[in-house]
Amino acid sequence: MDEILLDHAHCEKKAASTALSLIFRYPDLDALLRPLSELAREELRHFEMCLDRLKERGVPFRRLRPSRYASRLRDACREQEPERLLDTLLCCSLIEARSCERMKLLAEVIEDEDLAAFYRGLLASEARHHTMYVRLARQYYEEDEVAARLRILAEHEAKVLLEPDEGGVSLHSG
Amino acid sequence: MDEILLDHAHCEKKAASTALSLIFRYPDLDALLRPLSELAREELRHFEMCLDRLKERGVPFRRLRPSRYASRLRDACREQEPERLLDTLLCCSLIEARSCERMKLLAEVIEDEDLAAFYRGLLASEARHHTMYVRLARQYYEEDEVAARLRILAEHEAKVLLEPDEGGVSLHSG
Repeated sequence: MDEILLDHAHCEKKAASTALSLIFRYPDLDALLRPLSELAREELRHFEMCLDRLKERGVPFRRLRPSRYASRLRDACREQEPERLLDTLLCCSLIEARSCERMKLLAEVIEDEDLAAFYRGLLASEARHHTMYVRLARQYYEEDEVAARLRILAEHEAKVLLEPDEGGVSLHSG
Repeated sequence: MDEILLDHAHCEKKAASTALSLIFRYPDLDALLRPLSELAREELRHFEMCLDRLKERGVPFRRLRPSRYASRLRDACREQEPERLLDTLLCCSLIEARSCERMKLLAEVIEDEDLAAFYRGLLASEARHHTMYVRLARQYYEEDEVAARLRILAEHEAKVLLEPDEGGVSLHSG
């Protein structure tokens, strides 16, 4: 459980940093800025909540070898604009969706009622995040294009998830 | 005024990103993580407030050429640990202190009462930020060393501020 919490803290930090890096990369895309900034704040808040839980359990925060999931997922991202932004937003959405799914699972199986409640509490906002990334994509790309690309990336993700990963258990990884 | 607000928004974004990058660089320094995460959230909140003001004024967010102040200030940072962390924290403190000073000035001279109130509102938290960075430095370094180094960096900063900068007006720059 300590390992899961530690990994979770890293994921929240990584998610905040990804949102912030998009703000830096696309300063001219007005419609992205506020939602991404709000999302980064929320992820940082969750990061702090994980830190509190770790502290309660006497587990010091430390580096973790990142799982290969996120970097393997991003291998499918096209490098040229305007495709690059679309793929990045959709990968973020998939990562958040996976994270949400795992939190739901954790909330159901964890025996520590206090910790289960913690994960239940995070579920709602994690669910919001993955739809938000798709919504942002729709602001700049045609709905058909978004749907078609999401399907392709989701297929790629399914393959990635079947690959062996020595990184151990992982929430939304990074 | 539009230019100042735009620059201000960039500075808040940059300040958040600096705090977050310290979290990534020093994951093992437990005492840094929470305060830096909270600070990053606060800077992002201010970034969003600047975006709102810009929107009210019909000014789209756009890239700005960063002023040379922050990068020139960091020229004085030593590159080897443990000196690197000390210098980075103290440079952050100086940047925040300068920012706070300029906001105070803005709050006093701006004729638009609404905007002046906005800057007055930010002053308290900006004032907290620069003392926080020094406090964090004191957690990991001797008080004498912190004070001596802060004096040296402040002298370097004074020289930097006298250099010509084609970047135009700037708040805490970046």
